[in-house]
Amino acid sequence: MPKVRVHNVTISLDGFMAGPNQRLDAPFGDGVGWGDDLHSWFISASQDAAAGKSGIDVDYFVRGDQNIGATIMGRNMFGPQRGPWEDESWQGWWGENPPYHHDVFVHTHHLRPELEMAGGTTFHFTDEPPEAVLRRAFDAADGKDVRIGGGAAVIRQYLRAGLIDELHLVIAPLLIGRGERLLDDLGDGIDGYRVSELVSSPNVTHALLVRS
Amino acid sequence: MPKVRVHNVTISLDGFMAGPNQRLDAPFGDGVGWGDDLHSWFISASQDAAAGKSGIDVDYFVRGDQNIGATIMGRNMFGPQRGPWEDESWQGWWGENPPYHHDVFVHTHHLRPELEMAGGTTFHFTDEPPEAVLRRAFDAADGKDVRIGGGAAVIRQYLRAGLIDELHLVIAPLLIGRGERLLDDLGDGIDGYRVSELVSSPNVTHALLVRS
Repeated sequence: MPKVRVHNVTISLDGFMAGPNQRLDAPFGDGVGWGDDLHSWFISASQDAAAGKSGIDVDYFVRGDQNIGATIMGRNMFGPQRGPWEDESWQGWWGENPPYHHDVFVHTHHLRPELEMAGGTTFHFTDEPPEAVLRRAFDAADGKDVRIGGGAAVIRQYLRAGLIDELHLVIAPLLIGRGERLLDDLGDGIDGYRVSELVSSPNVTHALLVRS
Repeated sequence: MPKVRVHNVTISLDGFMAGPNQRLDAPFGDGVGWGDDLHSWFISASQDAAAGKSGIDVDYFVRGDQNIGATIMGRNMFGPQRGPWEDESWQGWWGENPPYHHDVFVHTHHLRPELEMAGGTTFHFTDEPPEAVLRRAFDAADGKDVRIGGGAAVIRQYLRAGLIDELHLVIAPLLIGRGERLLDDLGDGIDGYRVSELVSSPNVTHALLVRS
């Protein structure tokens, strides 16, 4: 059976994915910038992956792309805009040839036509509920797994609904103190998961949550 | 300068020290028992320590006793009673020769005379604020460090007040989902700490928080 997987989700030691007051010019909230300690392992791992190196961090990083046939993400992961699209010139953060090379489903209340990019990536904009989007994503994945790309709100929504099979979590050695937690207020959605891997590199700790 | 230290505090991967509804017959709350996955590393480490073994877990475990001259704890860590003492026959969980061998200060609203045990342990019952208890504990420690023994409420109280120099945290590979968090709602108390160690054994992940 194909799975629903989440990979490379980094939280602080105290459980936060982002600080408070996330906004356009501070997408990770107060006090947390891209390239800061929270994500520095990810940047290094992506460079190591590009260079063909191996190691704890890069091996986990690379697993996130293996056997994935479709991706689901929240609108904030597609772009910084909020509310209705002023125009449709924005084509995502990734340039003309996004690194997905498959169908990507973007949860948004503000629909727009699908967007076919170079390299096989097509963005679909949908306001359907998770279960329906997941059905479309599995169809598109054609037997491969579906990845929930993020951000936090979308991962939490799928966790709460009990729809995620594997969640690779990365604990970075810093404290954020306040902000948005990943594993909080998930109701019964969190029951039935166990931690099947817990491994530290010199930089971070990797944990894999799977359904029992 | 002598330090204020906390050791061997175990939390679940989602940050909980205990489940909901902690009470007399379920001191770790619903769904969490002593000897369960949350504390099994601790029981093994204490056995390994007694057997003179070494290893990641037992080495961290043993550090918690090194150079400690006094201990501070909450009343619930001293005994299961709540409210006024019905009598003073309870002498702690540890039998006639408790494993402290130094002065132990017990935060409680319900005072009782100090309790001198075999082996050099004396329990002092105090309703003074943390700063005052800490002064007494440093006096008693005579140049050694002071340990905050627990439970969660006392550790959080001292963290919020910015009084802790080192906090050794242990992340156990399980999810509790709801209950009492250690690192939550600490206000500015959490600022100024950094994570100086992050190491996984096959059982758990150890993190050391120190003041920057």
